[in-house]
Amino acid sequence: MKINNRHYRTIWPDPDNQTIIKIIDQRFLPHQFLIEDLHTIDDFAAAIREMHVRGAGLIGAAAGFGMYCAALSAPEKNPDDFIEQCAEKLLATRPTAKNLAWAVERQLTEIHKAHGKKEKAENAFRTACCIADEDALFCRQIGKHGLRLIEAISRKKGGKPVNILTHCNAGWLAFVDFGSATAPIYAAHHAGIKVHVYVDETRPWLQGARLTSWELKEEGVPHTLIADNTGGHLMQHGMVDLVIVGTDRTTFTGDVANKIGTYLKALAARDNNVPFYVALPSSTFDWELRDGIRDIPIEERSGDEVNYVSGLTAQHRMETVLIPPENTRSLNYGFDVTPARLVTALITERGVVAANRDAILNMFPEKKNPDQESAANSVS
Amino acid sequence: MKINNRHYRTIWPDPDNQTIIKIIDQRFLPHQFLIEDLHTIDDFAAAIREMHVRGAGLIGAAAGFGMYCAALSAPEKNPDDFIEQCAEKLLATRPTAKNLAWAVERQLTEIHKAHGKKEKAENAFRTACCIADEDALFCRQIGKHGLRLIEAISRKKGGKPVNILTHCNAGWLAFVDFGSATAPIYAAHHAGIKVHVYVDETRPWLQGARLTSWELKEEGVPHTLIADNTGGHLMQHGMVDLVIVGTDRTTFTGDVANKIGTYLKALAARDNNVPFYVALPSSTFDWELRDGIRDIPIEERSGDEVNYVSGLTAQHRMETVLIPPENTRSLNYGFDVTPARLVTALITERGVVAANRDAILNMFPEKKNPDQESAANSVS
Repeated sequence: MKINNRHYRTIWPDPDNQTIIKIIDQRFLPHQFLIEDLHTIDDFAAAIREMHVRGAGLIGAAAGFGMYCAALSAPEKNPDDFIEQCAEKLLATRPTAKNLAWAVERQLTEIHKAHGKKEKAENAFRTACCIADEDALFCRQIGKHGLRLIEAISRKKGGKPVNILTHCNAGWLAFVDFGSATAPIYAAHHAGIKVHVYVDETRPWLQGARLTSWELKEEGVPHTLIADNTGGHLMQHGMVDLVIVGTDRTTFTGDVANKIGTYLKALAARDNNVPFYVALPSSTFDWELRDGIRDIPIEERSGDEVNYVSGLTAQHRMETVLIPPENTRSLNYGFDVTPARLVTALITERGVVAANRDAILNMFPEKKNPDQESAANSVS
Repeated sequence: MKINNRHYRTIWPDPDNQTIIKIIDQRFLPHQFLIEDLHTIDDFAAAIREMHVRGAGLIGAAAGFGMYCAALSAPEKNPDDFIEQCAEKLLATRPTAKNLAWAVERQLTEIHKAHGKKEKAENAFRTACCIADEDALFCRQIGKHGLRLIEAISRKKGGKPVNILTHCNAGWLAFVDFGSATAPIYAAHHAGIKVHVYVDETRPWLQGARLTSWELKEEGVPHTLIADNTGGHLMQHGMVDLVIVGTDRTTFTGDVANKIGTYLKALAARDNNVPFYVALPSSTFDWELRDGIRDIPIEERSGDEVNYVSGLTAQHRMETVLIPPENTRSLNYGFDVTPARLVTALITERGVVAANRDAILNMFPEKKNPDQESAANSVS
């Protein structure tokens, strides 16, 4: 997508030196636009863990390139041991993110197919680029499918702006391009359909205030920033036509892990008959877990993210300030799980699908396996 | 309650000069503890509007003393015209707060009973002190009634800590003393019952992070600060035993206006079978409005409160920082309305009462009037 009218992806190999991977360091946005070079596996692990890059698809793409870096850096003798260690290092960075495990496993399969370090690195580079390209393509397809939902509401409203609420940043900054939740919004905007986005600021990391507002501004999409507390009131008063969010992991039964606070918006949407959609590429599905609330591991991050806020001073300097009394204990869960019963439908690259096991497995029949069957049987 | 082990109220007449009213200026807490002197009706209006003082009971008490200031400052000739203008000025500051109108009306009645400026000022002073004392007394009684609810849960848990979630600051800083939502917590803590409080930080003004954490710390009550997004996840995982919040206006039918985001917590409590209590002195009841969502006016404040955050730098200096891109449009509703159906019960100075018209009017029979009867008839 565009920054100052120039097209960017969130991650790309340096065209002059393919061993260096470039990312937009998202920690200082929107006030500072920095591009960072990643050289080593520790660079990748830190970039993912410390959220220089974040978001379902981008974590996957970064892990893909990280595994390429692992293959590049591996010793000639027994490269696989080193590569496996790198994989473990990456997997430990963000426990909730499904795309992370998905990309690492896909890379391990491709790397193990090759013989010798050079071929392994070539395979890994090809696979990393493929993961990134697929991510962008799938997001574009999510946009096409989601566009129809927005179009239908726009028609019903006689062309008046369609009000969409989103939480966190499931925008192009969370993927390689286009985004998941934002893809239908961008598609609608580019098709000339009037849309307006309510952007949850998304405490504590403020992905909405810092990233989603910035994305939408750069693309010229009308939007209004709100505190996370506000969405329920807006829905009570008919000010939201639909909710679209992303997800970091969705079970094959339709339970949706997404940024903490998503569940509260899903409850409000249900209470006010507002459709609640979750947009995701299939790489975000967890084909093994059955009960999202019980089984999806929820990342716990430092309480400092709650206690401190960074931003721009009147003197245009970045500054970090403490909010509560010093030494206040804070708890910082990164995600919550919205049960499938609250999800109107999932928007995937293959189309819009109900958030339940049968519908999901019918859309992705290649994923059917005996484990899931036994899960279904134990439920019925 | 205590600050550095010294007892304070949130508002009091200067013992050396009764024409000056002193308040704790809450804007810079917890990092700076400032006491402000209020001299003129404009001082009072600004202090209420700009939230030097805030919270249901304290707004009422401040309006009470503000009306005393009006009576003091009135001209000898036709004092009532001036006093009426002052009343209008105060009423315009915070549209949602019921205690504001309640205190102003109570003062007008008392002031109009008196003849001559001197007697009016004396009546107003007596009434202002009475409003403040009653507020403290009623909060203490709310504490006694709420204590029994916490005791019962503590017994059920075999003495393990009772986990209470609260939103915003309905603590002693929001009243004259004790607080509404916090009164049962303080009462339990002082009775030796183990409690632990999850404090919603309460964006955008951060009353929870700045005020509730500070209060609880000063009183030695164990607590954990969380982003507003977190409560749903905690309730899904059995980490919250009950929710207690305050309210700025509650209809006689049980609909509860409180700090924006309260409704989302009420939905999560209902979805997870967690009891959801609202604590209030009877001065917060609106005896006329029937449908809270439709009829309670919701204050809209400056979007700057969303876009900018203030806190303490590493150099121990107060600083304000901008979060989203410059010129981002923000919407800042101060309150939302939780429908009575989501409220387990109200905790008032007279006892615990179900959140419905009949139960409330049975507890406050002196408030029954023909308007409410016709409301009941039009519903049935």
